[in-house]
Amino acid sequence: MGKPVPATGQAPNPLVVNVSARHCHLTQEAVEALFGKGHQLTPMKWLYQEGQFAAKETVTLVGPRSRVISNLRILGPCRTLNQVELAYTDAIALGFDIPLRQSGKIEGTPGGMLMGPEGFFEMPDGIIRAERHVHMHPEDAAHYGVSAGDRMKLKIGGPCAVTFDEMLVRVDESFKLEVHIDTDEGNAVNLKPDTPCELVK
Amino acid sequence: MGKPVPATGQAPNPLVVNVSARHCHLTQEAVEALFGKGHQLTPMKWLYQEGQFAAKETVTLVGPRSRVISNLRILGPCRTLNQVELAYTDAIALGFDIPLRQSGKIEGTPGGMLMGPEGFFEMPDGIIRAERHVHMHPEDAAHYGVSAGDRMKLKIGGPCAVTFDEMLVRVDESFKLEVHIDTDEGNAVNLKPDTPCELVK
Repeated sequence: MGKPVPATGQAPNPLVVNVSARHCHLTQEAVEALFGKGHQLTPMKWLYQEGQFAAKETVTLVGPRSRVISNLRILGPCRTLNQVELAYTDAIALGFDIPLRQSGKIEGTPGGMLMGPEGFFEMPDGIIRAERHVHMHPEDAAHYGVSAGDRMKLKIGGPCAVTFDEMLVRVDESFKLEVHIDTDEGNAVNLKPDTPCELVK
Repeated sequence: MGKPVPATGQAPNPLVVNVSARHCHLTQEAVEALFGKGHQLTPMKWLYQEGQFAAKETVTLVGPRSRVISNLRILGPCRTLNQVELAYTDAIALGFDIPLRQSGKIEGTPGGMLMGPEGFFEMPDGIIRAERHVHMHPEDAAHYGVSAGDRMKLKIGGPCAVTFDEMLVRVDESFKLEVHIDTDEGNAVNLKPDTPCELVK
């Protein structure tokens, strides 16, 4: 759902808004427990952020009431922690009560069991709804006059127009300008390739 | 999820914001086709709008790709048309592409098959995403300075704060002040009983 939209003024880069469907990030240890010793994730589709990919591999997540989400996509490459990112609609279907967290801040969050073709992997924690956020290169942050950790608004037009407040700013030299919202947010606003979007302070 | 919140100024009535989960409205003819001749809907829970209820009865909706939604709640009393209201997340799961419509404006919308314990009922049309809307008594409309068909904004606070634009105003002597948003919208903003809400022009 890549959606380049010209930002206001002399923005150095076009604004891209993407919907993140539910997915997980895994350690190499978890991948091997689920897919077998020495297994490496296979890139299926390259994402907008440099080096990031949707893997061919998926897992099944078992919730606390033995309900499952099948075909949960793994995003690669492997990270140093295990994290599952769901929309609230997913969490309600699974029977989880999940907290809203910035990616990586998983202390005290609920866990669950992952199943793969070669085994199980128990996550003691790491199931979250990711905070809506915008990835920015430092030159994007300079253009918008914001810093890492700031909050912006994303105004989305069309017949289901919405303004998302509390959009977390994340800044890194490796980032390309891209907003990530989840499927609840994307469906609430019915985001399409031609839906107008604007990032404002 | 009734959520009375004091409106600004000297509002005659508290603002209530409710999430409408997927549901259908049926004619008496459809109810009899699905549940048997002479069958009357049984109120299970009275809703905030006077005389409206969630019925004990549910149906199964079959989509175009033979996927189903089970336990689709019927809201009563019976109406003069058949209408299914889904969130986009539901529609995507079912394989439908559904339009955004005001309740009752179902010309040219997709249909589907309903299944009940006593039979089937084919809807030639009527499957929609209902436009987010606010029910108002004329005295509420006067307070906010709006008329039927106008659009307002609903500002919702908290960590997932959102402003919903394009909130359709519906006015009737029988209405109590109440906003209806769907489950995608409710989950996008994680609406809770203590979430602050404000209706603005």
